[in-house]
Amino acid sequence: MRILIIGGVAGGASAAARARRLSETAEITIIERGPDVSFANCGLPYHIGGEITERSDLAIQTPESLSKLLNLEVLTRTEAIAIDRISKSVTVRDLETGDESRLSYDKLVLSPGAKPLVPQITGIDFPEVHSLRTLQDMDRIETDLKSAKDVLIIGGGFIGLEMAEQIHHLGCTTTLVERNRQVLTPLDPELAKDLASTFESKGVRLHFSENLISIEQGPTAVFASGLRLKTDLIILSIGVVPENALAEDCGLALGDRGHIRVNEYQQTSDENIYAAGDVVETSDSILGGYRPLALGGPANRQGRTIADHMFRGDEALPYPGSIGTANVRVFETTAALTGYGEEFLRKQDVPFQSVTINAASHADYYPGAETIKLKVLWSPEDGRILGAQAVGRDGVDKRIDVLATAIRGKMTVEDLCHLELCYAPPFGSAKDPVNIAGFAACNLREGLLKPKYGLPDGRAIVVDVRPAAKAKSQPVPGAINIPLPELRSRLGEIDSTQPVFAICQMGKTSYFAARILQQNGFDAHSIIGGAHLNL
Amino acid sequence: MRILIIGGVAGGASAAARARRLSETAEITIIERGPDVSFANCGLPYHIGGEITERSDLAIQTPESLSKLLNLEVLTRTEAIAIDRISKSVTVRDLETGDESRLSYDKLVLSPGAKPLVPQITGIDFPEVHSLRTLQDMDRIETDLKSAKDVLIIGGGFIGLEMAEQIHHLGCTTTLVERNRQVLTPLDPELAKDLASTFESKGVRLHFSENLISIEQGPTAVFASGLRLKTDLIILSIGVVPENALAEDCGLALGDRGHIRVNEYQQTSDENIYAAGDVVETSDSILGGYRPLALGGPANRQGRTIADHMFRGDEALPYPGSIGTANVRVFETTAALTGYGEEFLRKQDVPFQSVTINAASHADYYPGAETIKLKVLWSPEDGRILGAQAVGRDGVDKRIDVLATAIRGKMTVEDLCHLELCYAPPFGSAKDPVNIAGFAACNLREGLLKPKYGLPDGRAIVVDVRPAAKAKSQPVPGAINIPLPELRSRLGEIDSTQPVFAICQMGKTSYFAARILQQNGFDAHSIIGGAHLNL
Repeated sequence: MRILIIGGVAGGASAAARARRLSETAEITIIERGPDVSFANCGLPYHIGGEITERSDLAIQTPESLSKLLNLEVLTRTEAIAIDRISKSVTVRDLETGDESRLSYDKLVLSPGAKPLVPQITGIDFPEVHSLRTLQDMDRIETDLKSAKDVLIIGGGFIGLEMAEQIHHLGCTTTLVERNRQVLTPLDPELAKDLASTFESKGVRLHFSENLISIEQGPTAVFASGLRLKTDLIILSIGVVPENALAEDCGLALGDRGHIRVNEYQQTSDENIYAAGDVVETSDSILGGYRPLALGGPANRQGRTIADHMFRGDEALPYPGSIGTANVRVFETTAALTGYGEEFLRKQDVPFQSVTINAASHADYYPGAETIKLKVLWSPEDGRILGAQAVGRDGVDKRIDVLATAIRGKMTVEDLCHLELCYAPPFGSAKDPVNIAGFAACNLREGLLKPKYGLPDGRAIVVDVRPAAKAKSQPVPGAINIPLPELRSRLGEIDSTQPVFAICQMGKTSYFAARILQQNGFDAHSIIGGAHLNL
Repeated sequence: MRILIIGGVAGGASAAARARRLSETAEITIIERGPDVSFANCGLPYHIGGEITERSDLAIQTPESLSKLLNLEVLTRTEAIAIDRISKSVTVRDLETGDESRLSYDKLVLSPGAKPLVPQITGIDFPEVHSLRTLQDMDRIETDLKSAKDVLIIGGGFIGLEMAEQIHHLGCTTTLVERNRQVLTPLDPELAKDLASTFESKGVRLHFSENLISIEQGPTAVFASGLRLKTDLIILSIGVVPENALAEDCGLALGDRGHIRVNEYQQTSDENIYAAGDVVETSDSILGGYRPLALGGPANRQGRTIADHMFRGDEALPYPGSIGTANVRVFETTAALTGYGEEFLRKQDVPFQSVTINAASHADYYPGAETIKLKVLWSPEDGRILGAQAVGRDGVDKRIDVLATAIRGKMTVEDLCHLELCYAPPFGSAKDPVNIAGFAACNLREGLLKPKYGLPDGRAIVVDVRPAAKAKSQPVPGAINIPLPELRSRLGEIDSTQPVFAICQMGKTSYFAARILQQNGFDAHSIIGGAHLNL
C-alpha cells in the first residue's frame, strides 16, 4: 500500500502515525509545503507572548525525527500542484529547485489546512501587516515586535483574543478591532461581554462594528466608519479559508463554503482520497448536514480515522461528526462553548429554548469560589441539548467538557439533573452548576419557571427580591424591593392585574419568588441570570 | 398535604425546599435531632484545618431562616422515636423537655443520614476519641486540638484523608492508620499509592493493615499486630452505618447492609414513606441491583426527586440510580473516581478490561502541565464503561466528570475516542487524556494492544524503549534498552522465541514498539502505564 499525505501537521501527521501502527510495510510519504511538520500551531501566540519560552517546544517532531520514528519519507518545502485521479498520482514541485515530479498513490490524504483570510484592500501587503499560521509567521511577528510599541489586532476570534492577551503581556499598547458587535461571535452576546470587560479592565482597547477598508502608510488602519488607527504592527486574524485548490482542481465534491465534503470515514467523493482537518466539512452531530470546524482536536482524530479506514474498511471506528467545542482564556477569564449558541440557531430557524444560570465554581462555603455563567440550549421537542456556553474564572472548561460529552451521548436536559459529578469542597458542589442548569431547564420545560430574558421595559412591574442593602447598592431600574423572606406577607403591595417580573442577584431566588407569586394568582416571571447577568 | 421530614440536612432540606416550590399550601414539618439544619457537613474538615475561617459559613440555613424562607415548621432537638404506618403518624420526643407527642403525615420523608461506625472496643469512650459528623463534633475536636501536638486518624477513607491533610496544616504530628493495605479502598492500589506517597512527602505517617483492638490510657491506640501509638487525640473515620432504626422498627424493607431500599422515586416499601441520602440504597446504574452511596450530591438530588413524586406522581423525573463519583484532595494531589474499580469488579465476578494511561493535564508544550494517571474499566462484551479513576495534580476532577457523564449516558470506550473536549493550550490537548484512554481501550479491544499489567517477573524479556539516558537514570530491572527510533534496525538483538514486554516512560511508546515487534513476528506486549505507573 502506497500512502501519500499532503500536509504534515495535525491531520496528516496523525494519519501517518496511525497508518504505521497498523502496517509496518505500507509506503508512506508526507508532502509538506513548509519546512516544518507536526508543530504545535495552537501554541504560536504563547511563544510570541513569552509564556512558552523555547521555540523548540513547538516542534513536536522535526521532519528527521518523524521520518525515523515512523519509517516514512518526509518531503518538506515541496508543494503538491495537481492530482490525477485516473492514474492515481500527484505532481509535486520542489520549492527549492523548482523541479517537478510525479508520485503515485494507492490512497491519498489531503490535510493542507486552511489559510488566513486576507482581504484584498490597499496596503494589505505592507510589511507591518501579519497573519499567524506558521512558525515562520511567528518568527516574523517576534522580530517586528521588538521595535513595536503599539499593536493593532484585526479580528476578535480565538486567535485574535489569544494574540491580544499575549501582546498585552509584552507591554505593548494593544487594540483589538472586530467587525461584529462583540468578540467571539459563536458565543452569545450576554456572555461575550465578559471577555470584553476583561480586556477593558486590562487597558486593551476594543472597537466593535468596524470594517477595515484600507491600510495607509504609517501604518494606519482605516475603517468604513471613518475610524483611523495609527499603529506599529497589524495582526490580521479575521478567519481562515480552506486550502481547497488541489481538491477543487481535481473535481472533488466541495461544500457551500469551499470545504472538502467527507463521509464518516473521511473519504471524499473519490473513495481513494481522504481528507482531514481545517480543509474539510464533516457531518454535523447536532443538527445533521455538514459542518466545517477548524480546530486541532477534530483534525487529529480525523487523521486517525483515515488510517483506520485504509486498513480495516468499514470496520473502522467512524468519525461521529463535529460538535464545536472550544475555549479561550483572556487573562483570568475563560470562555468555553460546545454545540450551537442562540444567534446561530435563530439564524438557522432551529427551535430552541435556553437558560443561563450563575453558580459557584465550587462549594461557596469554601474559599476561592468564582461565579460561572452557564447557558444551556436545547430542543423544545425532546429536550436534547443543542449547545452550552460558559464564562468565568474557574471550572469553565470542566463544565463545558461535561456538556460536550452529554451532547455526544445525545443526552437531554433531564439527564443533566442527575449527572453525578465530583464533589469535594475545593472542586465542586453537591449540586454542580451543570445539575443546576438541568434543574432550571426542566423547571422551564415543566412550566414551573416562566422565563424572562433580559430586563423588561420601563413600564413593567419588576420586583427585586434581593436583600434591601443589595437592592440599594445596585438598583434595578424601576423595581420595587421586597426581599424574598418578606414576600408572602407583602403580596398586597404588588399589582396582581399586570405581569410581574422577579429579579434577584443570580437568578435562583427570583425563581423562588415567582413560584410564590404564581401560586398566589400572579402572572409571574423570573428574570433569567438575575442582576449578575443583566446589570 | 401534610409532609413530615425526619432529618433536615442534605436530603431532607432539599425535599422541603422543592416541595414548597411545588406547593405553597402543603404543611411541611422538619424534625431534626440536632440543633442545626442544612449545614455543610462536607466542609467540617476544612473549618478544623482553618481553610474555612468562619463557622457561620457552614450554616447554609439556620432553623429560623429556613422556616421563614420556606414557610414551614422546623423542630430541632427533636427526635423521631417511632413510626406508625397504619395511622400515618410519628411519635417524637423533645430532647430538651423529654415530652413526647404524635405528628400525623400524608407523606413521610426519612433522611436521617448515617452515623460514624464506632467499634465496640475498650477505651473507645475516652474523651480523646472523636468522630466527625456534626458541627458539635467539629467544635469539640477544635477545642481539644488546641492542646494537641500529636493526632492519630483511624481510617483512610475520604474523611480520614481530608482530616489528615487539615490536621497536618495545623502543625500537628499526624499519623493515619488504615486497616486495608492502602488508603481509599475504592481506588485501585496502583493509583492509591500516589496518595500515600504524597502524605509521606509531607511527613504524615502512614500505617497499613493495622487493626485497632483497644485504646489504653494516654491515649494509646493498640493494634492487633502489636503496634502501639501514643497520641494526644484520636479521630475515628472508619466508615458510616445508616441510621435505620426507625425504618427497621416499622418494617420497611432494608438492603443487605441495613440501608432502606427505595425505588426510582425514592419510595420505600411503604408508598407513603420516602427516603433519601446516606440511609438509602438506590438502584445501581452500572451493574443493576442496589447500591448505597453516602455522598452529598446524591442526597440532595434524591430529596428533589421525592418532592417531585409527591406532587406529580410517576410523571416526576426519576432518580436514575447511583454511579459512585467522588474525589478528594490530598495536598497538591487529587484523586477522583466514578463507577467501579478493579478490586470491586473482581470480587463481584464482573468481567472487565482496563487500561491506565499517563497523559498531560494540558498541552505539554505549554508550561505547568502535570501528568494525570487515568484508568478506565469497561465491559469486554460491549465496551460499556464500568468505571474510571484518576490521580494527579491538575485536571483530575474534570476528566472524571467527563467519564461520569459518559457512564450516565451508557457510553462505550469507543465513544471516548471521539469526545470533543475543550482544547486551548492552558486547558487541554488536541488529544485529551480521555480520548487517549479511549484510543488505548479500543486498541486493546481490537487486538492491536496486547497489555501487560505490572512488571513481568524476572525471567521475562523486557525491552525498555526509552532514550538511553532515561533508561540508565531510572533502570527497569532486567530490561535491555533499545530506544524506539533504533528498534527496527536492532530487532536481531531480541529473542523472538519468547514473549517480549516493551516498556517506556508513559505507556505510549511501548505500544508503538510492541506494534513494530508484533508485525515482525514477535509475541510482543506493552506494559500498561509504563515506568511512571510501575516504577
